[in-house]
Order: sequence, then structure tokens, then C-alpha cells
Amino acid sequence: MQTNRADIGLVGLAVMGQNLALNIADHGYTIAVFNRNPDKTREFIACCERQEPSSERLIGCVDLAEFVRSIKRPRKIVLLVKAGEATDATIEHLLPHLEAGDIIIDGGNAHWQDTTRREKRLSALGFHFIGSGVSGGETGARFGPSLMPSGTFEAWQSLEPIWRDIAAKVDPDTGKPLEGAAPGKPIQGGIPCTAYIGPNGAGHYVKMVHNGIEYIDMQLICEAYWLMKNLLGMNAGEIGKIFEEWNQGELSSYLIEITGDILQQKDPEGDGYLVDKVLDTAGQKGTGLWTAANALTLAIPANAIAEAVYARALSALKDERVSASQMLDGPVVTQESDRKALIEAIRNALFCSKICAYAQGFQLMAEAQIEYDWQLDFGTIAQIWQGGCIIRAGFLRKITEAYHRNPGLMNLMLDPYFKNALHEGQSHWRKAVSLAVANGIPVPAFGSAVAYYDGYRSAFLPANLLQAQRDFFGSHTYERTDQPRGKFFHLDWSSSDRQQNEV
Amino acid sequence: MQTNRADIGLVGLAVMGQNLALNIADHGYTIAVFNRNPDKTREFIACCERQEPSSERLIGCVDLAEFVRSIKRPRKIVLLVKAGEATDATIEHLLPHLEAGDIIIDGGNAHWQDTTRREKRLSALGFHFIGSGVSGGETGARFGPSLMPSGTFEAWQSLEPIWRDIAAKVDPDTGKPLEGAAPGKPIQGGIPCTAYIGPNGAGHYVKMVHNGIEYIDMQLICEAYWLMKNLLGMNAGEIGKIFEEWNQGELSSYLIEITGDILQQKDPEGDGYLVDKVLDTAGQKGTGLWTAANALTLAIPANAIAEAVYARALSALKDERVSASQMLDGPVVTQESDRKALIEAIRNALFCSKICAYAQGFQLMAEAQIEYDWQLDFGTIAQIWQGGCIIRAGFLRKITEAYHRNPGLMNLMLDPYFKNALHEGQSHWRKAVSLAVANGIPVPAFGSAVAYYDGYRSAFLPANLLQAQRDFFGSHTYERTDQPRGKFFHLDWSSSDRQQNEV
Repeated sequence: MQTNRADIGLVGLAVMGQNLALNIADHGYTIAVFNRNPDKTREFIACCERQEPSSERLIGCVDLAEFVRSIKRPRKIVLLVKAGEATDATIEHLLPHLEAGDIIIDGGNAHWQDTTRREKRLSALGFHFIGSGVSGGETGARFGPSLMPSGTFEAWQSLEPIWRDIAAKVDPDTGKPLEGAAPGKPIQGGIPCTAYIGPNGAGHYVKMVHNGIEYIDMQLICEAYWLMKNLLGMNAGEIGKIFEEWNQGELSSYLIEITGDILQQKDPEGDGYLVDKVLDTAGQKGTGLWTAANALTLAIPANAIAEAVYARALSALKDERVSASQMLDGPVVTQESDRKALIEAIRNALFCSKICAYAQGFQLMAEAQIEYDWQLDFGTIAQIWQGGCIIRAGFLRKITEAYHRNPGLMNLMLDPYFKNALHEGQSHWRKAVSLAVANGIPVPAFGSAVAYYDGYRSAFLPANLLQAQRDFFGSHTYERTDQPRGKFFHLDWSSSDRQQNEV
Repeated sequence: MQTNRADIGLVGLAVMGQNLALNIADHGYTIAVFNRNPDKTREFIACCERQEPSSERLIGCVDLAEFVRSIKRPRKIVLLVKAGEATDATIEHLLPHLEAGDIIIDGGNAHWQDTTRREKRLSALGFHFIGSGVSGGETGARFGPSLMPSGTFEAWQSLEPIWRDIAAKVDPDTGKPLEGAAPGKPIQGGIPCTAYIGPNGAGHYVKMVHNGIEYIDMQLICEAYWLMKNLLGMNAGEIGKIFEEWNQGELSSYLIEITGDILQQKDPEGDGYLVDKVLDTAGQKGTGLWTAANALTLAIPANAIAEAVYARALSALKDERVSASQMLDGPVVTQESDRKALIEAIRNALFCSKICAYAQGFQLMAEAQIEYDWQLDFGTIAQIWQGGCIIRAGFLRKITEAYHRNPGLMNLMLDPYFKNALHEGQSHWRKAVSLAVANGIPVPAFGSAVAYYDGYRSAFLPANLLQAQRDFFGSHTYERTDQPRGKFFHLDWSSSDRQQNEV
């Protein structure tokens, strides 16, 4: 084994690690790979030698010290191991073998606060630590993921050429993902879906928000499907065709595209459409709830994102729902006669709600950068998401354009493009939500999005009463609209003279 | 100073501590008090000697060792200091002076996980630790709070007589709080608003859920107020009278009562109603968001509670809202002509939403007791909340009755009383929400509650599509409705033959 031969190393040969290693090798880099279980490493190498054009650039190592020695300095070592304790354990095993300036890159699904903690510790020891969100699943890892790296800028500069090479690419003219990569034949040209996000946990934070947005994107599609099914009596195949149509317009996105495919998929095991046989309980892995919980902590109104998480939780209570369905009544559903008009109303509800959902995600990141001392570039973040990841969509190019027009944009809904879309779509949106509520069809995400829109554009909200209640029972004080902000008053509400005092 | 003279001790003489000490003294107990700042202790004692009938039973201590020695063994020492580091520091200061079997009772706003941690540590050292939620603010502490204690049952038995004496009391026949306590003249008789909740952090957990429910209770009232104001053009005084009426019926509660008072309160500094001058930005102190975040973690659909937290967050963005109100359009508000009918619709929306909100809170506790290994008695918890605390209401007696009827009740909405209320009120509720959405008036809590109701009573939800999406892009697998649960399938969605495999 030749020392200092590999351009980069990778630890963790589950599917994501295997695919990312092959993606790196396809781009001409020599990569050393290591797995805790040496058999896994041997199998992977043997398998690649049979079928992967780039296998000559893979160096399988079964000894950790040898693995580290085989990498050129400063070493770049990518971890794709299980988030949490396994990541910490892997780092501890690596440390004795590293030299000052070496760079560990965590490509796992780490919580951003863990990444911040690890970066701090490794920096103090003289190493670099990059936390890089990797989105796009197995296919993305193999042929071009969306990559959200953070850490010291110096370490990023060292990693940048490789990360740009292996990332998904979008067409600079259309913003559409460039497709057609195959083993040994990576995409040439295009704008890479990666860029430096910021220090410490910023990259994993942005990845977390991406996933929160993914939750709501999926939930909104489900609500659109459910309204067509229940208010128009359409079957899955018919609804699938509508999604196919929608994919040609402003809703065009990976998720809308696969929804069209899914709904038209016949059951391979019997009659009818497969989706009608799929059990309606959705799983979750945590990043959606992290986003909603972080929004609670930062006091940012990301209610639509939270509703998407709670909707999955409710879906999981299948047995309870089946029992309750026999006890709790609802209105008789009235099927709508004007199918075309209602489909258009639902499309607008989906689009307007989607704008709100993304507005919430970006508003959350805007607050996070203040709270955690980052400088995030929102136009670039939206660009990174244009390819490789699950939420990739033409929509994201509009977001990039919005932040290019106005880097200090206070809220995405205020950008002319999105504002006009909301103005044009809102009567349809309101109609879809009203019909759903009247007919007893749950649309938690559509409904919370419209409440967010209406709340955000309200100069006045009933929180005056709420704050007065807080002052009544807890002396929490209030400000007055006719007095300067920052002057606080308390009324002795229950005494007979009810005097107001400045406090 | 006589050793072992006091029945109980109390550390922390801010308002809550002072009032709880006086409440304890009023009930015939001798209580030693201590504050980190000895001047505060001296001032408190001097002030009490002038005006408090029970001052002879207060022992002011300026030395911590002397304070501890003055208490009968096993010592009961109540902490009412700031939650967090101050609580830990106070415990550390006390420890060297304690003897085996002594009991520390934390009456502060601790996070329940901190209480669990502290109980574990102190138990290992041979002491007892009780975390006791205290609700009811300053007045409650003085004349009868709602108390939610947890720890070892042995320690509770020692504390129980005092805790039962000082707690709020409700009329055993009507379930209404007994009122009329005054300094030196505590309430006699009645059912005390306290009971043993369970081990370690259970009491502070239940207090947290209480606060989460308080958030949504307040938000629902605000939405009812806002609809009357905006859809009927009623002024604050007129709306206050409606709340006064509502307080005579099934909505009867402390919060409805004070809302009637608040809305009819004239501005002491000028013309008109005070509430119209109060700035519409609501503060928050964390317990609401803890509840919503815990529901996310436990995957319980407490969406209405979360909406209440996000509504406060949105209210706090006052400047953004004022700017946005000039840029984002909404529909022209159509004032409703049938005032009486709409008011009744709004009342039903409030009542039905409230049922959903409480159902979510109790559903969350039901999951928590499994997750954290507690046995909670929901009928008793509802009874503890019938007096002393902010959410006290006749409604809670109905909840106690529901759990007495059926201790294994799966969801509050399924109890006959609440089910009937939902069935009778739902058409009104849907009308109020639909009108709000059509007119651009934000009702996030009403809307999310109706989505929860409709979702919970849905045997089928569109999560079949969502799970299919997850299988498409992430191989997350799905179950089938025509196959036994626990059998998981994966379809190779993007290959040409699209074969389904059991995995």
C-alpha cells in the first residue's frame, strides 16, 4: 500500500458511503475507503472491480492506520456513518492517526448542534471539521447530490474542488438539473449544487431546514390529492394525470413528477392502483421535527412546517383513527360539479401554500443566522437545492432570483413574483380550504398556510387581548399603541379603581 | 433561634415565595424562610409583622445553616427560586446542611427533565426530591394554587397534609372553586386541588402540559374576539358583554371571565377601551413551546397547541406585519348581517376547538406516561386544574367525569359528553372557520383544531401517497392494506418492470 496516494478517504460503506465513494472516483479522484467490518470493505472492492469503470481509483483498507496513511496531506476524510454515537466513536478512533491540519468531513444526518460541538472540539485539537449536509438519497450520492458544507473557510477551500465535481449540476440557463450521469460518465459542466454555507453547524442546519421543507412539500401534495379524490371522486390514475399536467407549469418539481408516476402506478399484485393499497401511515426520521422544534425555540412562525410533522404523527395512529371514524360524525361530503374549476382552485391552494412554506423556512434561517452568528446567502442556498435533492424544483430558481433582486428581502412573500402569485391565487386557495372545512376533509397544511399569510399581512392581530390577559393574571405588563415602544404598563385589573402604572 | 421548631422551610422570597410562605402560615404551620439576600428576608419579616395575621408563625433566617436547623426532621424545604442554574446552585448550597431523609420541594418553573435529573441525583445521596408544579400566579400562591407534585410516594406522604391545606379548593357538589380567602382566613373544606402525580419529573411535566393548554385556551379566545370585531364590527365593550354571557354557559371559566372584564375596561388614560390601545405583541416564557416540542418528539398530533405558540411568535413580528400589511392584499371583508347567528357560530367554534385542544393535551400525557414510565390519573389531573390555576373551568369537571366513566378513554373527543358537543357544534364551527378563511381573517387555532377533528375521525388519510413517495425516493418501504401489518414492501418505482418485493 502506497502512502499518501489517495486524494481523499471515506469511512462507512453502507449504501450512501459506497455511492458517494463511486461518485468521487468517477470524477478522477483516488479514494481510500474503510469500514469497521473489513469484510464489507473487501466485498465492496470486489464488487466494484467486476462492474465499476472507476474501480481502479478505489483503495480498500482494512486497517485504520493504513487507511489514514494512504491519504495525501492535509487529509480529507469523509464520514458516512450513523449519526450520533457512531459518529463520535469513529472520530475518536481516527484522532490518534491524524496530523495537524487534517480535515474530517461528516456527511451523515447529524443534528447541527452536534456538528457545532464536534467542530469546536476538533478545532481546539488542531484539526478541521466540516459538517456537510448531503441530500438526494442513494441516487443523489451516486450521480450528484446537493451538498451543504460548513466549517472553517480554509478547510472548505481544500475540499471545494472535489465537492463541486461530485455535486449535482444545473443548467445555467434554465436552472434545471442536468441529467444522464452513469457509472464512469459523470455530468460535464453546469452549476454545481454546493457552496460554502458558513462556520460550524450551519451546513447541517440548512440541511435540516431543507428536510423540514420537504415534509411540508409532501404534505401539501397529499392534501391536493385528497381533495381531488374526495370532492371530485377522481381515481388515482386520473389524479396522477393532473399532477403530470401540473409538472409542466410553475409547480414543476421532482416531487410533483414522482407523484404523477406513483398515482398512475398499477398494483403489480392485483387490480387497481397501487397507492390505494398502500397503508396510510407515514414514517418519520426526525429532521422534520427538529425544524419545527427549532422554530418554536427561535419564536419563528413556521406553523405549516409543524403541521406537516403533526400530520405524519396523526397518520401513524391508524387504529385509533379507524375506531374514531365509527364514532365521530362529519358532514356529508358534497361532490363538486365544476371539476375543472375546483382542480384549478386546488392547484392554486398548493402553489400559494408552498410559497408560505418556503417563506417560513427562509424566515427561520434568517433568524438562525442572527441567533447562531452565521451569514447565510439565501440565493445560494436556494441554488444548491435546485438539483440533486428531493425538493428540487423550478420554484427554487425563483427564490434565487428573489434574493438576487433584493438580498435583504424580509420575507419571500414580499418578492414581486411570489406576491403576485399569492394575489392571483388566493381566492382559489380560500375556496379550496373553505370547501375542505365545510366537507370535513382535513387540510391542516393548506389551512395553516392561509392563516400564516393572513396573519403576516395583518398590521393588527388579537394579541392585544392576549397580552392584556397575561397582564391581568400574571402582571406581565403591556405596551401601548399610543406610547413609544419599550414603555411598559401594568393595570391593577381586579382592584376597584383599576389604575394603570408605568413599570 | 429554636432548633427544629418550624414545620417546613422555604427558600426564595420573590413574590411567589412570599405568598406561598404566607399561605402556609395562614394554615397554622410554622415556616422558616430564607433568601440569598438577607435584607430581603428582614424586609419581608418586618413587613409581615405590620400587616399579616399569621406573621408569628414566620421565622426569618439570614444564615443557611441556622435556617436548616430550625426545621423539624425530616425537613421539608420548598424552593421558589429561578428555574435553571439558580435551582441547582440553591440545592448545592443546601446539601451540606441536610440529613438523610430530608425533602427538597422545587416549586419553580423547572423543565420536567431537570426535575427528573435532580430527583435521581438527590435520591442517590439519600435525600428526597419533589418537583411540584405550582399554578395560579401570585394570587394562587397566596390563597390557593393548583399543585402538581411528583417524587417518591414516601416523601409525598410527608408533604401531603400541608400541600392539601394550602391548595385551592373546589366545591364537591358543583366543582366550582371556593372563593373568599383573605389573609389569616383560609378557605375551610372543599376538595383540594392537589394530588400525587407520580415519580420524578411527572409533576412538572403535567404543569408543562397545563401551560400548553393555557396557551391554546387564550389563543382560541383571541380568535373568537377577532371574528366578532372584524366580521360583525362590534366594539370591545360589546364583545366583552358576549363573553360575560358565555361565562354563564358551558364555556364558563376564569379566562372567559377575565376576558369579559378586560374587553369592557375603559382606558384609564383616555377615550375608548383599553384593549384597543394595548400593543398586539404577546410575550412567552417557554412552557408552551416545551409542550409543542415534546409533542413533536413523542409524535402526538398536538397541532392546535403548537399553532398557539406560533401565533404568539407571529404577533411579536409587529414591524414586519405592519410593513407587509401595505404590500400583501387580502379579500374585502364582508360584514355578516345575522349577528346573532354568527355569534353563536363563533361560540361553537370556540367550544369545539377547546375540546380538541384538551384532547391533544391529554393524548400527549397518555403517550408521555408510556414513554417515561409513569401512571397518570387523568381524572385526578383534571380535578387538580378545577381550581387555583389559570385554566380553571367547569369544563374540567366534565373531563374528570369522562375519565371516571371510562379510565381507559382513548381520546377525550370519544367521551359521550364531548362527542355530542362536537356533533352539535360542528356545523357552526365549520361556518366560522370558512367565513374567516374567505374574509382573510387568520384563525390558526380554530382551523388547526377542525383539521385535527377531521383527521382523527378519518379511517383513511392521504399518508398512503406520502409513504409511497418515501418509498420512491428513499426506499423507506410501505405496508399494504390487504396484507398483515408488519409486512413491509418496496417497489422499484423507476425501473421499467416496477416489481414489488417484500423486505
